[in-house]
Amino acid sequence: MDKMTVGMLNSIHSPADVHALSSSQLADLCAEIRGTLLEYGRRHGGHIGSNLGVVELTVALHRVFDSPRDRLVFDVSHQSYVHKMLTGRATAYTDPKQFGSVTGFTNPLESEHDSFVLGHTGTSISLACGLAKTRDMQVSASGSSAIGNVIAVIGDGALSSAIAFEGLNNAAEQGGNLIIIVNDNEMSIAEDFGGMYGSLAALRKSDGTAALNLFKAFGLDYRYVERGNDVHALVEALRAVKDIDHPIVVHVHTTKGLGFDEAAGDGNNGSDGCNQTGTEPHAGQCEANHWQNPDSALNAALDARKYYGAMAMNSLESRFANEPGLVVISPATPGSNGITRDFRERAGAHYIDTGITEEHAAAFAAGIAKAGGRPVLATSATFFQRTFDQLQQELSLNHVPVTLLIFGAGLSGTDNTHSGAFDITMFANIPDLTCLAPTSGEQMLDMLAWATGPSEHGVVAIRMPGEQILELERAADMAFDPIARAAGHEPVIPAVDNAGDCPFNRYQILQAGRDIAVLGLGNTVALASQVVDRLSEGGADGDSNGLPALPVTATLIAVPQYSSLDEELLSMLADGHRIVVTLEDGQLEGGWGEKITAFYANSTDSRANAVHVLNFGAVKEFTDRVPLADLNRRYGLTSECIVNRIRQARP
Amino acid sequence: MDKMTVGMLNSIHSPADVHALSSSQLADLCAEIRGTLLEYGRRHGGHIGSNLGVVELTVALHRVFDSPRDRLVFDVSHQSYVHKMLTGRATAYTDPKQFGSVTGFTNPLESEHDSFVLGHTGTSISLACGLAKTRDMQVSASGSSAIGNVIAVIGDGALSSAIAFEGLNNAAEQGGNLIIIVNDNEMSIAEDFGGMYGSLAALRKSDGTAALNLFKAFGLDYRYVERGNDVHALVEALRAVKDIDHPIVVHVHTTKGLGFDEAAGDGNNGSDGCNQTGTEPHAGQCEANHWQNPDSALNAALDARKYYGAMAMNSLESRFANEPGLVVISPATPGSNGITRDFRERAGAHYIDTGITEEHAAAFAAGIAKAGGRPVLATSATFFQRTFDQLQQELSLNHVPVTLLIFGAGLSGTDNTHSGAFDITMFANIPDLTCLAPTSGEQMLDMLAWATGPSEHGVVAIRMPGEQILELERAADMAFDPIARAAGHEPVIPAVDNAGDCPFNRYQILQAGRDIAVLGLGNTVALASQVVDRLSEGGADGDSNGLPALPVTATLIAVPQYSSLDEELLSMLADGHRIVVTLEDGQLEGGWGEKITAFYANSTDSRANAVHVLNFGAVKEFTDRVPLADLNRRYGLTSECIVNRIRQARP
Repeated sequence: MDKMTVGMLNSIHSPADVHALSSSQLADLCAEIRGTLLEYGRRHGGHIGSNLGVVELTVALHRVFDSPRDRLVFDVSHQSYVHKMLTGRATAYTDPKQFGSVTGFTNPLESEHDSFVLGHTGTSISLACGLAKTRDMQVSASGSSAIGNVIAVIGDGALSSAIAFEGLNNAAEQGGNLIIIVNDNEMSIAEDFGGMYGSLAALRKSDGTAALNLFKAFGLDYRYVERGNDVHALVEALRAVKDIDHPIVVHVHTTKGLGFDEAAGDGNNGSDGCNQTGTEPHAGQCEANHWQNPDSALNAALDARKYYGAMAMNSLESRFANEPGLVVISPATPGSNGITRDFRERAGAHYIDTGITEEHAAAFAAGIAKAGGRPVLATSATFFQRTFDQLQQELSLNHVPVTLLIFGAGLSGTDNTHSGAFDITMFANIPDLTCLAPTSGEQMLDMLAWATGPSEHGVVAIRMPGEQILELERAADMAFDPIARAAGHEPVIPAVDNAGDCPFNRYQILQAGRDIAVLGLGNTVALASQVVDRLSEGGADGDSNGLPALPVTATLIAVPQYSSLDEELLSMLADGHRIVVTLEDGQLEGGWGEKITAFYANSTDSRANAVHVLNFGAVKEFTDRVPLADLNRRYGLTSECIVNRIRQARP
Repeated sequence: MDKMTVGMLNSIHSPADVHALSSSQLADLCAEIRGTLLEYGRRHGGHIGSNLGVVELTVALHRVFDSPRDRLVFDVSHQSYVHKMLTGRATAYTDPKQFGSVTGFTNPLESEHDSFVLGHTGTSISLACGLAKTRDMQVSASGSSAIGNVIAVIGDGALSSAIAFEGLNNAAEQGGNLIIIVNDNEMSIAEDFGGMYGSLAALRKSDGTAALNLFKAFGLDYRYVERGNDVHALVEALRAVKDIDHPIVVHVHTTKGLGFDEAAGDGNNGSDGCNQTGTEPHAGQCEANHWQNPDSALNAALDARKYYGAMAMNSLESRFANEPGLVVISPATPGSNGITRDFRERAGAHYIDTGITEEHAAAFAAGIAKAGGRPVLATSATFFQRTFDQLQQELSLNHVPVTLLIFGAGLSGTDNTHSGAFDITMFANIPDLTCLAPTSGEQMLDMLAWATGPSEHGVVAIRMPGEQILELERAADMAFDPIARAAGHEPVIPAVDNAGDCPFNRYQILQAGRDIAVLGLGNTVALASQVVDRLSEGGADGDSNGLPALPVTATLIAVPQYSSLDEELLSMLADGHRIVVTLEDGQLEGGWGEKITAFYANSTDSRANAVHVLNFGAVKEFTDRVPLADLNRRYGLTSECIVNRIRQARP
């Protein structure tokens, strides 16, 4: 690690500086980068394992190719830290004060060396095909193009995702220069899953000579590089394919997390590259070294995803012995959703990691349900986007009892490729899909019990409670150990008039008032409550006439679902309420609140027409690492803003 | 064809009747089915080519397996006609009076032999994995299951779609009984596209013995059946894999459209299985024998999809010589969208059929655009659903100048798997995606010229005009030959204040009036005009007071886009208009009209708050082959209903 003091990175401002190094300096540069990554991981956290695996590959790419003329497309681009260090952004990793200056993914706004904003899996080959296509059309027309080699870098885990296969299949047919680097570290986010991994293993074992070659079966040329963490071997291999006139797969065998365990000091390099024992700071926080939390997060309380995920898994686990059809499906992202390694081991065949295959996972769930099973598909709001067609066709249209657990839904300070602001709009507008937004951990368990129980119903999506709910529950001393809490709760399913009705359709009046009704969907119930409290206090800031606002006892309503309207309650509110306020922690356009507005406008009851609805939620926009508090202020999602708007609107 | 008179089909009421036949009767049954399909195609139209190819395969499946205990999952299920004939639904194909009694796809509401409602590509393997998973869990728990063999039937064309690869990759890992029949007729909807088809060809050529085997590379067992239209060979092959204890691919070589050309009488079996010469009735109407129109449609005028598609293609074609980056991408569905064979041949490298790969096609377009090209991606509204994540991530978030041509959008009498009612909701709620709804053929060309031109902008979706527009234009004598019409139009792009602004953002006042404003989005402008006409007539049917309605001169507004609001015009309308009516031919929930309602409700202008908005559009529901006129009545989308609601709402 003494190489860190050399400070070679300080002199790398662009790929040209990598070209200018002597060959013997490359290994030193790699060592310094590796040390920098480890230190950065401890202080800041990030996708450290994948970047540790591609240190040498990235240095070799920038040594051999000429970016940005030669175009590098990193799949998902979570492994682009080294690339960023070599393209003028090293201080973002070496200087703690600048840690926030770059995003964790490629972004053209940061550098001409980044072609795309990417954060979802498997698209690099298709994007590269597109870059190459334009280049070839330009060359045909005029003899030249500003684009040289086009190189996609994709991991073996990402390779299991649908679009990656489509890209592979199209690449050969397209022809022309296209270099697909398969970074094979024998690992997905969690374990690799799928029949093709046997083929990859056989290729590794045979030094790339096995007759059964998936890539050749897709019509592609192929080379194998066993020593994928040897920068000189990589430079030689990449030089051999530079300026190639046809698509080729360069299959590179790397070690994810290389250097991590040595640095952690116990020398235990488990099969998943993740420390398992001793004092290492990341137990339970890294999923096969996919994501590393900083040391400062050591012993931090579980976040809402992991907390409520663990509650949900525990409540299901107790039923596995008697319900063969009850299965949990995670498309490669168990750890961040509270589906712990221990749970997975105990669950056995009741748990399936399908790899990074959201589409398959959704259709697979439809099949399980059609055969009488009760599948539970768990992933992030942002990744459910990949299943949109399955949500509509194989799931909702087929009215199968599949339960979807939506994690990470709602506004957050995340980067622009992983936003949870769009899920309400996506789910709520699909016919015959029941969308539930629990307002407590216990209600989530009740909803899960109903969704996975014997009742006749179709698809049920449960928007897992967010930090707002967990904060409230922690404050109320309810959030102790999630396992014990789930074990101690006996689910209660409200009675329904007709079999098949959703027992969670009714909005809940938490406090009866008059004149103003504040409806909080799911996570926003706490905010709604604050608004009602503030209204009850009155205030000097005044109403639309500039007079001091009088105290008002408003009606407070918790809304536990967003797929249909509680028209009876809404109609009732029209009697005695002039203003109805809707709160949601997602995009307004196409979302839930606008349905309330449209309901009152289109009612045939003139009293309902007279209700003035005010909608609060997010603007239709992409946001990139904007702190949540700033977003809430931007969207007027604070009790102060909401109360002010209510007072301005009061007639 | 004399076999048709035998009437063997009349005695087949269930698979048991196929089991009961003597072996020698099987070929006769196949001949009768083939004749029935040909006759049905001439009279009714349908997916005849694919069904002609699987006559023997389907008979053999029902001969060997025991449906519904053994579960058959037909991918897309457009090739399930023969299956329906053998499972109690033969009269739907033999008796013209009952032609409408079944849908063109599998549907559990029709028969216990259909497991799923399916109409989109590539999901059969995943669905079958799910059925098999539940079976295996049940067997593990209790020793038995109601499900026996699970069989997916997928065509080579469908195999190119993303989720199919995910399914293949997961099947081997899952293990247990699972039979994947690959129906290889060497054809997709149009031509097969992709590197894997070389591998399939090598397998066919080597009688399945080629070392490079895509299926084995996915870890699957494999068998090949060369004589895929020989019912006895198929029975033998299927018997050999029945009750197999692990997943296996049975690769069956069939001939799409077998018997079609002989029956057509000219013996010309072109390479695409589609008659090319002589008097055959389907020229230009079948895409590689994928879809056959009935004889009664001979010489019918082009439908809106083909008409406006041809206009669009012609306008682009004239620019190909000078714009190397201008490329048209069709994921396997060119013919139905007016992208004719002649155009494709002339376009050369400016046209790309990516196979049935919507996800790849969208990301590919992003790559083309990022490199400076101007890609135009054309497919159906219903198939764009498969690109949802790419629409958001690779396209909109990357702000690339990709043009999307949405065909088949809007309400129609289609089956429930191909509805165009959901596209507005899907597209309009994605940030930074410009959604245009032209109200004439010429406006569509103007929009296309802007979207594919040099202006700085991101993704532009153009909702191609529907039958309502074409009908209007035909009535006005504007719709002559689409090619000549496109050639005769010089695109006009309205000026904008700021570079980057969309020149089609402003709503257009077609007629100024007062009190009531009727806004028609895209296709609904004609309906809006009818409403305004009817309002101007007054009427005896009365207002909310029961008095005869006085004539009103309402304001008529054409709305050419649905991604942002023309707030200036909407605010202006609040002065002098008490009622604003929105019309759209898509789902109301999450759609365009609700944005107008929310705009007025949330305005800080009390005049705007007082505007009463009435929204007209479709209910959130799936509909299956409901005639369009019935749907319009159901949703109140007739001028009579709209005028009545307006009169009831008038204060």
